[in-house]
Amino acid sequence: MRDGEKDQCMSTDIQGHSSRPALLVIDMQNDFVRPGAPLQVAGVRSIIPKVSALLALFRKKGLPVFHVIRVHRASGVDVEITRREIFSKTPFAVEGTLGAEVIPELAPIPGEHVVKKTRMSAFFQTDLDLMLRTLGADTLFVAGIQTPNCVRTTVFDAMAYNYRVFLVRDAVAAKTDAIHDANVLDMQNIGIGIVECAEVPRMLP
Amino acid sequence: MRDGEKDQCMSTDIQGHSSRPALLVIDMQNDFVRPGAPLQVAGVRSIIPKVSALLALFRKKGLPVFHVIRVHRASGVDVEITRREIFSKTPFAVEGTLGAEVIPELAPIPGEHVVKKTRMSAFFQTDLDLMLRTLGADTLFVAGIQTPNCVRTTVFDAMAYNYRVFLVRDAVAAKTDAIHDANVLDMQNIGIGIVECAEVPRMLP
Repeated sequence: MRDGEKDQCMSTDIQGHSSRPALLVIDMQNDFVRPGAPLQVAGVRSIIPKVSALLALFRKKGLPVFHVIRVHRASGVDVEITRREIFSKTPFAVEGTLGAEVIPELAPIPGEHVVKKTRMSAFFQTDLDLMLRTLGADTLFVAGIQTPNCVRTTVFDAMAYNYRVFLVRDAVAAKTDAIHDANVLDMQNIGIGIVECAEVPRMLP
Repeated sequence: MRDGEKDQCMSTDIQGHSSRPALLVIDMQNDFVRPGAPLQVAGVRSIIPKVSALLALFRKKGLPVFHVIRVHRASGVDVEITRREIFSKTPFAVEGTLGAEVIPELAPIPGEHVVKKTRMSAFFQTDLDLMLRTLGADTLFVAGIQTPNCVRTTVFDAMAYNYRVFLVRDAVAAKTDAIHDANVLDMQNIGIGIVECAEVPRMLP
């Protein structure tokens, strides 16, 4: 916060713990976001400007950005068993296809990190934790889709690894508002910081 | 199912995939369950008879049982950073104390496995997956507390590891019914089987 300016949205706790932040953008890929994509998440289009603003902010400040994406082999051998049937009918996020790429509006730029995963959590059998520790990041801001699945599992794992975690509420989306809200409440209940996009600029060093 | 008996509660999918089941009982420890314990989970007492019935069933059939418990060093160094403050005021699940033990009604018997964890998921930096694979288990029935935290993270990790997972709805509990129901819905939406305790006997080999 600058010049002792008063801000009702920020607690001292939030201020005190965002010294080495990184941004995680989860699954903002064509197959889940592009209008008309068979696996498009309802409501996801509305968060694009918010995620874009977060990206611009972290870029401007030279802070680490991680684009976490789901990528599957075309054979589907690395798909969850509960999704094998849908994948066999409608393959999604297949390696090397346009569908697996981050949407053009949010595409990674040189210097940003891309983490590929085959499961929900960005930490599950990836090198994300190792990279974050190498960079010295201690605080994570999380954006993307969807609130109950890839976003939430990533948030819970991040907490398990002792990162301080802030969910950017208006930069994540779920199939319905009810699901989104119930999940935000659960995360708040375990000590995850819930913030709006507009609050983030003053939380960064 | 026996003798071609018709049962509305079971799908052929459920029947076809429970050949090597194991039971996970999560966090049914004195500090979270004992009446009057400072961290007692509201509503947890009501599930004790259900979890007890599941234990009796798995014991009778000689199927593997895992008691997953949270255990912390008295120093609190292994507690999540979001819980350090509460732990310093009210230490819970401390190694070697009665509070860390499974409640007497559900106490492990010889031949059953105890997995100690310091985080929510039973799989997080434990040998649970290794033991399950060694035993050849492919299907997990999950009971215990609480639905949004230790139960759900365990269920999601189990799915990530390709286990077939059944949440025993009336043998898990949360702080409120609304939280419980919202979490059950999220798990159902990703392909977790939601069953009642009374359905389990006929799902086992």
